[in-house]
Amino acid sequence: MVRPLLYERVAADVADLIARGTYRPGDRVPSVRVLSRRQRVGVNTAVEAYAQLENRRVIEARPQSGYYVSCPLPEPDGAPPSASPRQKLAATAVDLGNGPLEVMRTLADPSLVPLGRGVPNGELLPIEKLSRMLATEARRFRLESVSYGGAKGLKRLRTQIAKRSLGAGCRFSPEEIVVTSGCVEAVTLALQATCRPGDTVAIGSPVYYTFLNSIQELGLKVLEIPSTPREGMSVDVLAYALRQHPVRACLVIANFNNPLGSVMPDERKEELVRLLLTHDIPLIEDDVYGDLGFGPHRPNATKAYDDAGLVLYCSSFSKTLAPGYRVGWIAPGRYLDRVQRLKSVFSLATASPTQLAVAEFLTSGGYDHHLRAMRRTYAAQLAHVRAAIARWFPAGTRVTRPDGGFVVWVELPPGVDGLALHEQALRKRIAVAPGTLFTTSDRFRNCIRVSAAFWSERIREGLRTVGGIACGMTHGGA
Amino acid sequence: MVRPLLYERVAADVADLIARGTYRPGDRVPSVRVLSRRQRVGVNTAVEAYAQLENRRVIEARPQSGYYVSCPLPEPDGAPPSASPRQKLAATAVDLGNGPLEVMRTLADPSLVPLGRGVPNGELLPIEKLSRMLATEARRFRLESVSYGGAKGLKRLRTQIAKRSLGAGCRFSPEEIVVTSGCVEAVTLALQATCRPGDTVAIGSPVYYTFLNSIQELGLKVLEIPSTPREGMSVDVLAYALRQHPVRACLVIANFNNPLGSVMPDERKEELVRLLLTHDIPLIEDDVYGDLGFGPHRPNATKAYDDAGLVLYCSSFSKTLAPGYRVGWIAPGRYLDRVQRLKSVFSLATASPTQLAVAEFLTSGGYDHHLRAMRRTYAAQLAHVRAAIARWFPAGTRVTRPDGGFVVWVELPPGVDGLALHEQALRKRIAVAPGTLFTTSDRFRNCIRVSAAFWSERIREGLRTVGGIACGMTHGGA
Repeated sequence: MVRPLLYERVAADVADLIARGTYRPGDRVPSVRVLSRRQRVGVNTAVEAYAQLENRRVIEARPQSGYYVSCPLPEPDGAPPSASPRQKLAATAVDLGNGPLEVMRTLADPSLVPLGRGVPNGELLPIEKLSRMLATEARRFRLESVSYGGAKGLKRLRTQIAKRSLGAGCRFSPEEIVVTSGCVEAVTLALQATCRPGDTVAIGSPVYYTFLNSIQELGLKVLEIPSTPREGMSVDVLAYALRQHPVRACLVIANFNNPLGSVMPDERKEELVRLLLTHDIPLIEDDVYGDLGFGPHRPNATKAYDDAGLVLYCSSFSKTLAPGYRVGWIAPGRYLDRVQRLKSVFSLATASPTQLAVAEFLTSGGYDHHLRAMRRTYAAQLAHVRAAIARWFPAGTRVTRPDGGFVVWVELPPGVDGLALHEQALRKRIAVAPGTLFTTSDRFRNCIRVSAAFWSERIREGLRTVGGIACGMTHGGA
Repeated sequence: MVRPLLYERVAADVADLIARGTYRPGDRVPSVRVLSRRQRVGVNTAVEAYAQLENRRVIEARPQSGYYVSCPLPEPDGAPPSASPRQKLAATAVDLGNGPLEVMRTLADPSLVPLGRGVPNGELLPIEKLSRMLATEARRFRLESVSYGGAKGLKRLRTQIAKRSLGAGCRFSPEEIVVTSGCVEAVTLALQATCRPGDTVAIGSPVYYTFLNSIQELGLKVLEIPSTPREGMSVDVLAYALRQHPVRACLVIANFNNPLGSVMPDERKEELVRLLLTHDIPLIEDDVYGDLGFGPHRPNATKAYDDAGLVLYCSSFSKTLAPGYRVGWIAPGRYLDRVQRLKSVFSLATASPTQLAVAEFLTSGGYDHHLRAMRRTYAAQLAHVRAAIARWFPAGTRVTRPDGGFVVWVELPPGVDGLALHEQALRKRIAVAPGTLFTTSDRFRNCIRVSAAFWSERIREGLRTVGGIACGMTHGGA
């Protein structure tokens, strides 16, 4: 018999503790330093033990946060449908009716347990620093703070945004940027700049519901392109669709997609831009979650692969600094003049005081430091939420494992209806976002999106309750 | 021979000083108190002397500011065209081309003498108080200041707006109001809520140019209804037009119209609302100048005559507090749900910190006191601007005499081309808004809009220069 190596023995001990439930899925296991002390082994041995457990997917590393017990849940595969469903691809006029509106209203209701809403956790935002900067900058730029900042927005802010764009693989000049009232206005302007009523927009599906609403209100049609949790919108299916349909623009959330959490690999991003260039179709990119990745490197924007000015890159500080400041921006490439004109005609300019405060925060507020702390928290909370789902949701549930952002996409067993789940949860004062919100089709009936922006006993209990309701919906419970 | 009464002698003395040029058009004459002291007569006699001069239109009273030497310029009559021009009324798709854009860009250029731009004078705004409130409110409502305020906007602000609406003859509840990013966004939302691409909007002409641009970008057609400087948009012509054209919405600036300065009399407002009710056509009202009247009473909104929810009332604090705060609102009547939905879909919400600051200013900042001071200044500046025009512009020039706001509309003799004037003035670093900006027709070629928001030696010299250029354009000078 071969005696196990020292690190194997340590790994086996930890695995045993996990198997007995001392550490549950989503829990943090002791740090390498603590493990080495407790097991009276060297730090290197502890590192090797954890590496082995990580290889076996028993634990998983969260950068700058430590190791966590893996969640045994499988991910939804969401493989792009082959031949037959492809034929079902159809551009449809969006007519959501009032149902989704009612649902969206409940998601925003602050008196409910917020499992459904995609807003950041206010307590993780640098409120005090921002408020201070709001005050100092208004004093420093007294006349500027009350005056129109121009349709493009304040130069100070555009300069800071341009500097940071390097991190996403882009190189903007301040003059290529138009400041907007959040990313939603940026995307609205991009749609208005590229499409006319009746045109078709191709978009990864499931779709962030606000976009479905804007598409409807602008009188556009939507062509939903299937996405997978691993790679996002299928470029292959899109290529197929472009041969069948006259598509006027494509809309993508490539990084930490809402609601899937998917990140499109760099090769796919490049392929996507190349494909659209062939067809001369503009790409509207929403990158609001790009700064919230848990890995060591920020993923590139698709814009990084665009030499032709075909990508209208949209983002904001609503997920990282302050949604209520309404500071977003767009780098519209060859549509710059058009977007600037629309901004100026439809709302003249973006509020100046919040632009000044954000510019100052980017200059001297320690934005990167703030982001690191925020990412750590969201990574830990996502692990908690996934673990709670693993524990309380019916057998057969699948859940995404995003490497950034703060939402997970949950695929329940076929018998469970997301909308019914939403309604029953609502009776217990819990808000859940049903999958049907994210499509014009009848897909995703058994799905829900769950937010990990918040974590507390109340959230945990909420998930337990929702899981219980879902179990009741499966055949005879689970 | 009848000896003149004492007050008649005093009046004659003052008239003589004016005739000799001691007091020029637009100058303030001595106050009643000073006059009585200088002429060694009682205060009542001085009052009677001024009353006589006012009756003879030699001087004019500016409420809370004193008496000013009248400006001898006639007003443009702009009588609504009768039979034949009526037949010319036609709904036209708006296609402004790039010319107006270039012109608008120069109007916003801060390095030029600002005779053309319709923005308020920053130095008249309560900058320090607003900045202080921006700071205190962000501290007081820490989480609220960084969070989404909801599509309708913050309740605190809507409550204050609702209270003040009484002054315009309206009675809004806070729940009937949607806060917007300035009045321009409010009007854009109103157009989007009531019209679809291809529809026709009837609007008083000359038209505030941003509205022509929005109408173009929304794919709407415009039907320009002639307006007069005394009564604004002609309700008679509108009634005629409605029988000929399928009009989907009507847009009006009833109070201190931009660019005419006209105020629609109350009876006309009532007629207008009644007329549109007959046709079931919504009325979009822009009332941004309503608080800037020089008279003792704020004029009513057309909304005051609307019991059917047909008026979408739009306004903002951009002219009175801070354009850069981008805080406006809309009370959309029966279109409330639709407007709220569009606001939420196109830009989610309005920035929270500026809403909080404006709400606090309305609560405890002395808004009415501030308005009184601002009105006095604009009244005096308008008198200066009109006097400068009287002095330096060619004979035959007509200019409006608005009772509020800060723009005048100048009708030059037929030979003078406003666009050429704009171009020649630009070479001397002066920005002038040519009349062609305010129409899709070929009317107003000999008109310009002049701002009285600012007054200084530089402005006076600018007007003198522009007047000189205009004189050179008339036959052999004037």
